[in-house]
Amino acid sequence: MVRVAIIGGTGYTALEVMRLLHRHPQAEVKVVSSRSESGPVSSVHTSLSGMFDFNMTNPSVTEIAELADVVFCCLPHKASMDAIPSLLSAGLKVVDLSADYRLSDPSVYEKWYGHVHTDPTRLGNTVYGLPELYRDRIKGQDLIANPGCYTSTSILALAPFVSGGLIEPSSIIIDAKSGVSGAGRAPKLGTLYAECNESFSAYGVGTHRHMPEIEQILSDVSSENVEVLFTPHLVPMDRGIFATIYATPKAELTEKQAIESLREFYSGNPFVRVVSHLPKTKDVAYTNYCDITARVVKGRLMILAVLDNMIKGAAGVAVQNFNLMCDFDETTALL
Amino acid sequence: MVRVAIIGGTGYTALEVMRLLHRHPQAEVKVVSSRSESGPVSSVHTSLSGMFDFNMTNPSVTEIAELADVVFCCLPHKASMDAIPSLLSAGLKVVDLSADYRLSDPSVYEKWYGHVHTDPTRLGNTVYGLPELYRDRIKGQDLIANPGCYTSTSILALAPFVSGGLIEPSSIIIDAKSGVSGAGRAPKLGTLYAECNESFSAYGVGTHRHMPEIEQILSDVSSENVEVLFTPHLVPMDRGIFATIYATPKAELTEKQAIESLREFYSGNPFVRVVSHLPKTKDVAYTNYCDITARVVKGRLMILAVLDNMIKGAAGVAVQNFNLMCDFDETTALL
Amino acid sequence: MVRVAIIGGTGYTALEVMRLLHRHPQAEVKVVSSRSESGPVSSVHTSLSGMFDFNMTNPSVTEIAELADVVFCCLPHKASMDAIPSLLSAGLKVVDLSADYRLSDPSVYEKWYGHVHTDPTRLGNTVYGLPELYRDRIKGQDLIANPGCYTSTSILALAPFVSGGLIEPSSIIIDAKSGVSGAGRAPKLGTLYAECNESFSAYGVGTHRHMPEIEQILSDVSSENVEVLFTPHLVPMDRGIFATIYATPKAELTEKQAIESLREFYSGNPFVRVVSHLPKTKDVAYTNYCDITARVVKGRLMILAVLDNMIKGAAGVAVQNFNLMCDFDETTALL
Amino acid sequence: MVRVAIIGGTGYTALEVMRLLHRHPQAEVKVVSSRSESGPVSSVHTSLSGMFDFNMTNPSVTEIAELADVVFCCLPHKASMDAIPSLLSAGLKVVDLSADYRLSDPSVYEKWYGHVHTDPTRLGNTVYGLPELYRDRIKGQDLIANPGCYTSTSILALAPFVSGGLIEPSSIIIDAKSGVSGAGRAPKLGTLYAECNESFSAYGVGTHRHMPEIEQILSDVSSENVEVLFTPHLVPMDRGIFATIYATPKAELTEKQAIESLREFYSGNPFVRVVSHLPKTKDVAYTNYCDITARVVKGRLMILAVLDNMIKGAAGVAVQNFNLMCDFDETTALL
Repeated sequence: MVRVAIIGGTGYTALEVMRLLHRHPQAEVKVVSSRSESGPVSSVHTSLSGMFDFNMTNPSVTEIAELADVVFCCLPHKASMDAIPSLLSAGLKVVDLSADYRLSDPSVYEKWYGHVHTDPTRLGNTVYGLPELYRDRIKGQDLIANPGCYTSTSILALAPFVSGGLIEPSSIIIDAKSGVSGAGRAPKLGTLYAECNESFSAYGVGTHRHMPEIEQILSDVSSENVEVLFTPHLVPMDRGIFATIYATPKAELTEKQAIESLREFYSGNPFVRVVSHLPKTKDVAYTNYCDITARVVKGRLMILAVLDNMIKGAAGVAVQNFNLMCDFDETTALL
Repeated sequence: MVRVAIIGGTGYTALEVMRLLHRHPQAEVKVVSSRSESGPVSSVHTSLSGMFDFNMTNPSVTEIAELADVVFCCLPHKASMDAIPSLLSAGLKVVDLSADYRLSDPSVYEKWYGHVHTDPTRLGNTVYGLPELYRDRIKGQDLIANPGCYTSTSILALAPFVSGGLIEPSSIIIDAKSGVSGAGRAPKLGTLYAECNESFSAYGVGTHRHMPEIEQILSDVSSENVEVLFTPHLVPMDRGIFATIYATPKAELTEKQAIESLREFYSGNPFVRVVSHLPKTKDVAYTNYCDITARVVKGRLMILAVLDNMIKGAAGVAVQNFNLMCDFDETTALL
Repeated sequence: MVRVAIIGGTGYTALEVMRLLHRHPQAEVKVVSSRSESGPVSSVHTSLSGMFDFNMTNPSVTEIAELADVVFCCLPHKASMDAIPSLLSAGLKVVDLSADYRLSDPSVYEKWYGHVHTDPTRLGNTVYGLPELYRDRIKGQDLIANPGCYTSTSILALAPFVSGGLIEPSSIIIDAKSGVSGAGRAPKLGTLYAECNESFSAYGVGTHRHMPEIEQILSDVSSENVEVLFTPHLVPMDRGIFATIYATPKAELTEKQAIESLREFYSGNPFVRVVSHLPKTKDVAYTNYCDITARVVKGRLMILAVLDNMIKGAAGVAVQNFNLMCDFDETTALL
Repeated sequence: MVRVAIIGGTGYTALEVMRLLHRHPQAEVKVVSSRSESGPVSSVHTSLSGMFDFNMTNPSVTEIAELADVVFCCLPHKASMDAIPSLLSAGLKVVDLSADYRLSDPSVYEKWYGHVHTDPTRLGNTVYGLPELYRDRIKGQDLIANPGCYTSTSILALAPFVSGGLIEPSSIIIDAKSGVSGAGRAPKLGTLYAECNESFSAYGVGTHRHMPEIEQILSDVSSENVEVLFTPHLVPMDRGIFATIYATPKAELTEKQAIESLREFYSGNPFVRVVSHLPKTKDVAYTNYCDITARVVKGRLMILAVLDNMIKGAAGVAVQNFNLMCDFDETTALL
């Protein structure tokens, strides 16, 4: 039984990690930390009543290392980078759900996050936790940078085409839509029910931090430099990301070929479902699946992809990475 | 043209008052005050773009009195009570959308709001702004206490029966449901989209401040002391209040008689629609109507009533009171 | 491995049964029948892509009996009663998710469903599948009448109090609220998105078929005849039932005593969580839990209960019954 | 007072036309026709209780011509084309809310709608009812083809740029999102609450009938042939269209220049608000406004536009056209 600590236990991703691990036969949550809360986990997350009735605590790194083997770090960026080096030094394995170890270049990190990265060497050597691309490298790692939700959707949709050199790398437009849970549990005007409900809006046009993350990974799997135009939108729903992606094929491409490229690329991957119908976010709600299809319209390639931002976009892929790090079956607790 | 000032201009009720007054041919909004915002009204309330592009200000009472004739006070309770005496002294008429002048007894106010009322004499003499009950007394007043949203729904549903002595005054159960906009625009965990959406919950069981307000007005229109069991619930929708009310008739009562009692009571009232079908909140969304019907099941009277908490439950009835105070047609800007 | 057939495979409850059984280590779905669809299960229920890609069929009873051991009957009432006797004769075990075998009295069935019951003897002898009340009788049965969603919520909330003789049996008011999925997958005006969204409404006031079902079971667990006033409402959300229940205690009852009565009654029951906070439907979404608490306000007992109408209110309790019938651990596939 | 008939009175657009005309001081609804309903208008559309309590009828053209001066034709396409010639012959003016007279080329109509146009001469000569483009031609017309909702949003966003020759006409991608009310009031599986809620999906990829309509009008206002890639999506909300539009500028274009082009083009148009912030559908809900802004990201022009599909996208622009046809102030009943 692997003993788990959840750091930053009050947020939605922490909640989802706990919910998933409750089903995991080889993992047991021993510590849930919080700086602001000290009561029962189930009094903060009432859906966990009867499942996690022990108290949240604020333990030292030494105490965590005594109680746990693996840490799911659910802190916000910056706080995560402050905590992780000492956790690793204490011999813990870490799945970092923040953005702090995703970008490989410290200067890119500084540009997009507005502060210097204090652990630059490790930054450049951390494996990006997208199992469909980096499965073999994830196995046995001590630290994994769990990917962003928009990022996973976009990369999974595009990787078969950019890695195969099938599309113009400068032609990519990602029109992405997300449910509101992705914005987190901290009260803000913009995520109040009365602001979001019955409303659809764009935000972060040209400035969203998932854009450089997408470009880094797509450039990594391609032989070319990939630049994307990425536009996120907020949808009045809890969960789900939908990406509508437009790209210009380098050579003529049929719809059948496009879908076949997807199928080949994801053959053997249990959580990517290449479908022929148009996917809906509801099809993957509360699951670790990413559903993808392709269309060719007026000569342009369109890729449509969906996943649950809380599961395959955060907590689910974190558990998937955890399974790989611990050499468990990749699908444990996720089907 | 009556010149209007809106005090406390950042909230949702202020927004709705402005939206309604924009259609009012005899009123012009000259001042929108805020302590926290100083930019254009339309930058805080983007739906008012092109309609209210002048700046929010933080004027003195003297300045308000120079620019306006009537004030819609959209401050929270306590702040409202601090501001209103001087506004009245400066010769302004005031519609108070807070709870500060609704309860007539200072000790009841203190019990439910947790602080002493600093204007107790006026408290006992302020007219409660429910035109269907107090139309004649509202006309010509300088200060009107605009009623609460749950309160209006409950009172309009019950007044015909308690005033007619048709039901046991101790038997009343009000199971009320509200959209989320009623909770206001201040960011709170409980009103985040991700908390409210796909959820239904009760709150304030036995402790909601609209309970004594309902009891006071129903006791006033009855010859008996009326005590109610009032339970509010939160519905994942923007707007609307639905009250399901249960009471024991004193003597046998048929459904037809019950509906007839409603019709007679509200004859000539333009904003109460007594209907024979079961009403829905959507029927009255964005309107100043309150729809009511009655049923008799297993000998018990059920009354079902709906209104839009932002309009008939707040800003709409405020404009209705404004029309009465200014001797305009009661329906101006409200149909 | 127990082989399962799903009869009436196009509806939402069938979908949920399949989703749950996909996780069940001792059950395998071998047949999904439909009279209207013959393509892959996953083309009707796209969320099951990659999980159930075999075709829907319309097999004879003999064919079903060759392929399966247990049938989940997801047909509408009447159709269910037409199919079940021959399924049982062919040696199959049946969990009936319709209402056809819930009421024990054929004349009550006829009154509420508008047609004669064609299998009256069996009707009077079928066990009602609420494991918290009838666990021992469910074990080993061949036919179980799976309870209704409103019914389960109401009965679980009230059983401890009526069986203990703590409340006046004629005083019970159940104000119940349901998400829209309960209305099923057949297209109807009243369940269109544009009709339900941003709306709250009552329906079936005094006439809903779950009322006699609640009364039958509560009378069964009580020594008195129990009559309830039951009012269902439609909430703009997918899933969840919330019951706000009012009753008059026979003798003085404190909140603490009320909650303690619930805790004692449900001790050892894995799917009823007696909580001290006010429950929300979201706490139990996508789970087999029913969360219950109690309050005493102005001398009246209030019980508040929630469950997911698709899971604990339909497919989840069906699998729970299946587990009991097959002598599996009651919680298999449900945690 | 202009007398109005509504043909096809059971749908949502008819409802909205009635709601708007109820406020119109120079129009009176005298006839609401339906083939399926014969009871009071307010029993079909309960929100109109007390406003339209007269019966729906199924009158002949002659009867309509006796009772009304102007017809709002809310029939589906094909039915509309069958009815309109005789209405015009009887001397009535018609605003057609269907698609039957929007496309100017009968062969294009036949290709996209699957049947021959039976009134081809009139088709080529009917004015397209987008007042911002064709105001002067609308005045005094007897028949106006009221535009589609996606179409209006897209055209209003793009017209300033294509008419000014500022963007490559083959580079245009319109990623459009709509609330569910646009799908109408006929019960269909795909628009059930339980299907749409908590889901985001694309549909009609490459095949939506608004695509040729957009191309026709944009080509008309441009000197070039304009071809667009148009993708509609369904958003879990009642009302609102959001268009995210991508295009390649012919020459370098700054954000400031782009917004200035919009402002100049729409100067003097009361219902187009060019804004500098990112618009939200909620800003224009229940209004006749279309809010538009522009951004330039990585050299590409992005235009973001919103309107209420029921108002500016259907009933509101219909009333706006009615006002122009009748020589009333264009904004009557619409502010």
